[in-house]
Amino acid sequence: MILAEIITIGDEILIGQIIDSNSAWIAQQLNKIGVSVKQITSISDDENHILTALSDAEKRASVIIITGGLGPTKDDITKKTLAKYFNSGALVIHEPSLAIIKKIFERYKAPLLEVNIQQAAVPDNCEVIINEQGTAPGMLFKKNKHLFFSLPGVPYEMMNLVETKVLPLIRDNFSLPVIIHETMLTAGVGESFLAEKIADIENSLPANIKLAYLPKLGQVRLRLSAYGDEKEPLKAKINHFKNLIIERVKEHIIATEDIPIEKAVVDFMIKHSITLSVAESCTGGQLSQHITAIPGCSRMFLGGAISYSYQLKEKILGVKNDTLTNFGAVSEEVIKEMVTGALLNFESDYAIAISGIAGPDGGTSDKPVGTVWIAIANKNNLQTKRFNFSGKRAQNIERSVTNALYMLFRMMKQQHAE
Amino acid sequence: MILAEIITIGDEILIGQIIDSNSAWIAQQLNKIGVSVKQITSISDDENHILTALSDAEKRASVIIITGGLGPTKDDITKKTLAKYFNSGALVIHEPSLAIIKKIFERYKAPLLEVNIQQAAVPDNCEVIINEQGTAPGMLFKKNKHLFFSLPGVPYEMMNLVETKVLPLIRDNFSLPVIIHETMLTAGVGESFLAEKIADIENSLPANIKLAYLPKLGQVRLRLSAYGDEKEPLKAKINHFKNLIIERVKEHIIATEDIPIEKAVVDFMIKHSITLSVAESCTGGQLSQHITAIPGCSRMFLGGAISYSYQLKEKILGVKNDTLTNFGAVSEEVIKEMVTGALLNFESDYAIAISGIAGPDGGTSDKPVGTVWIAIANKNNLQTKRFNFSGKRAQNIERSVTNALYMLFRMMKQQHAE
Repeated sequence: MILAEIITIGDEILIGQIIDSNSAWIAQQLNKIGVSVKQITSISDDENHILTALSDAEKRASVIIITGGLGPTKDDITKKTLAKYFNSGALVIHEPSLAIIKKIFERYKAPLLEVNIQQAAVPDNCEVIINEQGTAPGMLFKKNKHLFFSLPGVPYEMMNLVETKVLPLIRDNFSLPVIIHETMLTAGVGESFLAEKIADIENSLPANIKLAYLPKLGQVRLRLSAYGDEKEPLKAKINHFKNLIIERVKEHIIATEDIPIEKAVVDFMIKHSITLSVAESCTGGQLSQHITAIPGCSRMFLGGAISYSYQLKEKILGVKNDTLTNFGAVSEEVIKEMVTGALLNFESDYAIAISGIAGPDGGTSDKPVGTVWIAIANKNNLQTKRFNFSGKRAQNIERSVTNALYMLFRMMKQQHAE
Repeated sequence: MILAEIITIGDEILIGQIIDSNSAWIAQQLNKIGVSVKQITSISDDENHILTALSDAEKRASVIIITGGLGPTKDDITKKTLAKYFNSGALVIHEPSLAIIKKIFERYKAPLLEVNIQQAAVPDNCEVIINEQGTAPGMLFKKNKHLFFSLPGVPYEMMNLVETKVLPLIRDNFSLPVIIHETMLTAGVGESFLAEKIADIENSLPANIKLAYLPKLGQVRLRLSAYGDEKEPLKAKINHFKNLIIERVKEHIIATEDIPIEKAVVDFMIKHSITLSVAESCTGGQLSQHITAIPGCSRMFLGGAISYSYQLKEKILGVKNDTLTNFGAVSEEVIKEMVTGALLNFESDYAIAISGIAGPDGGTSDKPVGTVWIAIANKNNLQTKRFNFSGKRAQNIERSVTNALYMLFRMMKQQHAE
């Protein structure tokens, strides 16, 4: 197995100013070609720290990808430190990179300063990875059959270099294994319930197939990863175990590929030409927001009401004032009228209604914070369920959304054969 | 300066499945109390790798925060490895943690399995950091004046433990410098515009006060950080510079504390007893979701329509079919009818309407992806504005929300003197 490490250089991540999404993206790309990421490290722009990180990484991995630390400001010492680590002679101006820098400054009509020219300077023993999109060239250093890549931290520049230059170079230099991932999405049950249900299948997995549980509020993804030399036999093997797992927990399977639950719902509805509207109270738009994050959702999502106040529940959804007064907004009676109102007024095939107390305030002894009523309806069916969540506001909202989508998915599955 | 390191354990980050937002959040909290983060490391669930990471971190930092690797499934070997590293005797069941686990399982009416009980087992020489919100207790190990914290990776559980237990423990064990942060939120202008406007103030800052620009789609936070020994003089000094900056860019200041723009809007409306409704199209619920993420928003937010389809724009908002047909949903004419419809039908003091093409599809030559119309209205005023964003779907939606809130905030400020 070829191992890689990713090192990011710069303070932004260490002070929490930015989240290290570059490394996650690079890790995905490496995993896809069968390179396993052993460690991801964020360090500061400090010579000793960079030197230690490089030598530690070299002990563990054959591919080291360094991002960041290549800006024009004087505190960027990455290049000098790389030159030291790789015993380079001197920094020399790389003319093709200087030409790109000049072109960029001309385009923005910005004055070309000495610090900008110096961005084209690279250690004399590296292979330059030309960066057409920015002022910092990428670099490749080879040492004892290890590849060290130094790339700019600007995401789109880095991504372009990884896709077009770095991955092909890794493929050329190493004989990579075949790797296949298969992911299943479950909802409505917890990690430990699933683990118990499929314990015997998990125990029977061969050494080259691993199973991971990836839990998120209200849902768990199960991911099988298989490693080998030949694609087709590996595919057959992983699918064998995937099918065993699906068969065992089929009532909780939402998707047999790596997609979020909202995409499974959107895809299903588009496939069956059915539409959805929503009536959201405590979730305040989050259900709609999840659905509308999926491109193409306008083919199944009509929209809905965020009926936060009594007033809007009555006006848009036709909930009776009496019902609100007698039972309260968080009640089975109101949620039924909300879902029926959405279905009729918005003329959709299915409707979801959610009303609850997300917190932190508003709880009572019989309806504590976390009490959420969810209703799903189509013209023939109306299903309601009370949940008693116990998280903070954001978690209660997220769990409500996931459970509503899960309830909808189950009702649709029963009505529409695949 | 007290140094810290953050280590995350588990494959999810290394395969790029999740982005390491936990570490960024922890780094922010540590920086706020004057603890500097030296390195952030993500490693796999592997005994040797964990042992090496712990010993490397111990050489560099006095505070080590470990997250993840505490789930109930058998691949979680973190606890056993910690026991080995700290020469613990055995794992023992921590009864108060077991009681919490039992309560959680009772609440969800889930069967308590042996793997769940084992989550309450901890090395016998750690101090347990009780986790009321989840099944994995936190742990503190002390070694040679170093503090090692092991925390669950579930974000809200981790955050709660850091805020209520970890930070106070760090404060108790180390003598930390006094550090004060003052943050101002601006919107509607860019980082370089602000930098130019306040360049002389920034240049006059003393060595122990630093200014950081923290840009996010459509908004920039300005954060002053002052370091010293005594709180009161430091406070006076930082406030002097804060006031200079506020005075200089006052028309772009949304808040003079570290709050999101939606909280500034919610607070302002509650203070002035005015209400809001919304009509969202391309933002698909994200505007409402931002507002309803603020506890107490029910005092100003009535709700609104997610009028994703023509049908719902007509039904809920009273947009004329003719207007939609003649001008298209993304037009000044439609946005005016949407905002007026919201204001009248939902009977709020202010209304926001947003209609645009978020992408990736749906663009045309005169209305490319990123074209967004926003309208703000109260009973006396109606303001519209066309934006031409150029990001991806998620960025276009986020920018639309921020700009809508900014437009609303400015209109309210003009009408309601503080």
